Amino acid sequence: MGYRAFLERMGEVNDLLCAESVLSWDARTMMPSGGADTRAKQLATLTVLAREHLVADETRRLLERAEAETAKLPEDSVERTMCAQVREAIEYHLRIPAALVHRRAEVGSKGQHVWAKARAESDFASFVPVLEQTIALNQEMAEHIGYEEHPYDALMFRFEPGETVRSLQPLFAALREGLQPLVRAIGEKEPPRVDFLQRPFPVDRQLEFALKMAGKLGYDTGRGRLDLTVHPFEISFTRNDVRITTRVNDEWMPKSLFGTLHETGHALYEQYCDPAYTRTPFATDLVGLYAVGGVSFGAHESQSRLFENHVGRSREFWELNYGELHATFPEQLAGIDTETFWRAVNRVEPGLVRVESDELTYDFHIMLRVEIEAALIDGSLGVSELPEAWNAKVKEYLGLDVPNDRLGVLQDVHWSSGQIGTFCNYTIGNVMAGQLFHTATQDDLIRDGLAKADYRPLREWMTEHVHRHGRRYTRDQLLENATGKALDPQYYIEHLTRKYTDIYGV
Amino acid sequence: MGYRAFLERMGEVNDLLCAESVLSWDARTMMPSGGADTRAKQLATLTVLAREHLVADETRRLLERAEAETAKLPEDSVERTMCAQVREAIEYHLRIPAALVHRRAEVGSKGQHVWAKARAESDFASFVPVLEQTIALNQEMAEHIGYEEHPYDALMFRFEPGETVRSLQPLFAALREGLQPLVRAIGEKEPPRVDFLQRPFPVDRQLEFALKMAGKLGYDTGRGRLDLTVHPFEISFTRNDVRITTRVNDEWMPKSLFGTLHETGHALYEQYCDPAYTRTPFATDLVGLYAVGGVSFGAHESQSRLFENHVGRSREFWELNYGELHATFPEQLAGIDTETFWRAVNRVEPGLVRVESDELTYDFHIMLRVEIEAALIDGSLGVSELPEAWNAKVKEYLGLDVPNDRLGVLQDVHWSSGQIGTFCNYTIGNVMAGQLFHTATQDDLIRDGLAKADYRPLREWMTEHVHRHGRRYTRDQLLENATGKALDPQYYIEHLTRKYTDIYGV
Repeated sequence: MGYRAFLERMGEVNDLLCAESVLSWDARTMMPSGGADTRAKQLATLTVLAREHLVADETRRLLERAEAETAKLPEDSVERTMCAQVREAIEYHLRIPAALVHRRAEVGSKGQHVWAKARAESDFASFVPVLEQTIALNQEMAEHIGYEEHPYDALMFRFEPGETVRSLQPLFAALREGLQPLVRAIGEKEPPRVDFLQRPFPVDRQLEFALKMAGKLGYDTGRGRLDLTVHPFEISFTRNDVRITTRVNDEWMPKSLFGTLHETGHALYEQYCDPAYTRTPFATDLVGLYAVGGVSFGAHESQSRLFENHVGRSREFWELNYGELHATFPEQLAGIDTETFWRAVNRVEPGLVRVESDELTYDFHIMLRVEIEAALIDGSLGVSELPEAWNAKVKEYLGLDVPNDRLGVLQDVHWSSGQIGTFCNYTIGNVMAGQLFHTATQDDLIRDGLAKADYRPLREWMTEHVHRHGRRYTRDQLLENATGKALDPQYYIEHLTRKYTDIYGV
Repeated sequence: MGYRAFLERMGEVNDLLCAESVLSWDARTMMPSGGADTRAKQLATLTVLAREHLVADETRRLLERAEAETAKLPEDSVERTMCAQVREAIEYHLRIPAALVHRRAEVGSKGQHVWAKARAESDFASFVPVLEQTIALNQEMAEHIGYEEHPYDALMFRFEPGETVRSLQPLFAALREGLQPLVRAIGEKEPPRVDFLQRPFPVDRQLEFALKMAGKLGYDTGRGRLDLTVHPFEISFTRNDVRITTRVNDEWMPKSLFGTLHETGHALYEQYCDPAYTRTPFATDLVGLYAVGGVSFGAHESQSRLFENHVGRSREFWELNYGELHATFPEQLAGIDTETFWRAVNRVEPGLVRVESDELTYDFHIMLRVEIEAALIDGSLGVSELPEAWNAKVKEYLGLDVPNDRLGVLQDVHWSSGQIGTFCNYTIGNVMAGQLFHTATQDDLIRDGLAKADYRPLREWMTEHVHRHGRRYTRDQLLENATGKALDPQYYIEHLTRKYTDIYGV
């Protein structure tokens, strides 16, 4: 009885956060421009009230009753795990003063405007004061949240619980060691032709084809929809309504196609969560205050990367699906065979901009950001020294000179809105994707499926080992249960080495 | 300081109700079918939390401080009026036990499913048990809300504050007396041809033309948008985001065109509310818990009826705009001149279905519903006697025999969801529209505008006298200020008499 009432209370928190997500989806896909100011207020109110509803005396009373009622169940039972997660989230929020949350939101709101202008004018100096405030507020946050070794660990907790500056070091070292020689060798080879991808591909047919491929991978449009937006994303309002968005780029067709496959991977994580977890803490990020089922941002990213890269950019995928793509765009792809297309969408080219980078060089963009963020937070790097540090790392990791801050330190939106500590999840996602895909494809049924464009066995394996659990297990438990071992970059490095050796003959 | 904090609190209530409206809009225009169940829970949670936020101790504390702070201002000042409205709304909600609200929502949710099946099968008997529950719950509600003369008055309060069974009697009598002879006389005349309106008009061009006309009337698409839906509606999330919807009927082109003009009228009321009232009680229906600025449902309907009927169905409007319509649909309207078109969209034909009825017979549908609802609530009519009473009134008012309950007592959705007391607002709206249009068109500038398809002076008059005030004044104060007199059906009767005498030569 007490546990049921507690769950219903948690359902209300999920409802509020789902409502916030609907308003956010609407703001980014449908809302007329005039609605921006009052929509921002509505979003802020929903977040504040969701937090208040979570930490309220009434919730704590219900939690205590639920804990008492379930005390005799095993510690790792669903019921006790939910109670423990809620207690941890409440304690997390109560450690952070409401006034600090409020100031952070204010600075974040102001920061986005300042940053947008600074970026447009490539004027880092004008961004310095608000970024200094942002760093100071995040340092303050870290002290309230608490940490063992490094203040940056406290900030990563919200996105990638358990990950630390220390734990990332060997991971990054292994990636550098495994991938740098490959990038260098490729740099000396002739790049594949990509000119035909820059032809105009009609928007409606691009969307139709992308949605068809999403459906093949398992995306259920009876519980979702695809829309256009400026910055593509996936968002869910319970597993029963999981939406994806894309941006169609007239000059670079792969953007929308692979972007849709990427968001499809995210969407599958939400759509195939256990229905019994709907509206429960296992489908709610109570720390980040976000209605999402994935156990960490990195785990979520593993699914988007897996379906985009391991499936969608594989030679096998296009051997089976290129015919349909060609039939959809006979003029644009005239004279282009499967091999040429596959090589083109896997071209490696170290670049300055993270969101445009290829599969192989992506992680170097992440490493430099994580290292810089950690240094900003522990105070070893000052905001005014940032461009210099950034440019040095770009030179070191990507071999490029940064011509201006717009293409350098000002390129990402994250810091402007006050978000620090989220970048590592992209690389965690890549590494997890490699490990999960390797394990799944030990299964004959899955390999046979991939060989005949039947992606259901693979999707079902991911559902069985990842999707259905929502936030039931920690990321490391999930990975251990699914693959029998802890996070290990070797499979990801092998995957990249195999693919790019094949394409570039290095 | 106290007043400001009180306003901010009211802003949060508005935010929650706007969020509910966004979710409702999305559910009716965009949501994939799978989302229905969890969306219903999200909507319910937002309503419950908005009510809790409104009646919370914290709100009452802030209200008391605001009242104390503004006590020396005039009683009819903005500040004191807001405080008084909030106090009245809180008292209203506290009179109704939360358990009753909850049971009513449950029965309403169940009722809609039962009704949909009953209607499809024209099986009134299967709807009787849940309708009896609905009536009993509404009777209970009425006792809690309180009333002077008739329990139905208590239920109308939420939709049309101040209106009573007694006050509606002379209004209905005047309409019967004024309109019945007209309906009878028209029944003996040859109806205008309408066949060409049933031709297929391409959907996209219908929407484009309708939106163009909406824009001419003043609808600002920078703060709104038009979408397709099954049951058209207007909805707003502050004045900065006011959306309209329409349904395109392949077999009856006027449905979408005039439906859009109708929703445009509603939208203008919201879009042109004083910006200073945004997120305040003057833009929030705190009794009905709905983020809307119009002072009553009837007042809101006056704007939709005015722009749909007085403007949109006038001869003058089509003399000026038919050329554009014809150019948009040259094949469908081949050989049809302005006069023929105008007569067609004003055809009178007493029918069984309210939502398909014409301007002249519409109010008879309303009168019979209001009379029946009042009798159900005071117990003089039992639910099982309903079909007989319904059919008798349809015979009396419209001269028609009802062949089955699907086309009779089962046609409207309102009762199924538990809503009783809302029908009178349609007729109040018609009468107000007549009175406001009559007053506005005493102004040369407005008449000159209408004569050259410049609808801005009319819209500005409505903004000055109606829109901008939101819920600042009561409906009767608003009408008195705008027209110099109380609600008076003579202008509306004159308008209908003039128009239909012209068309039918009666």
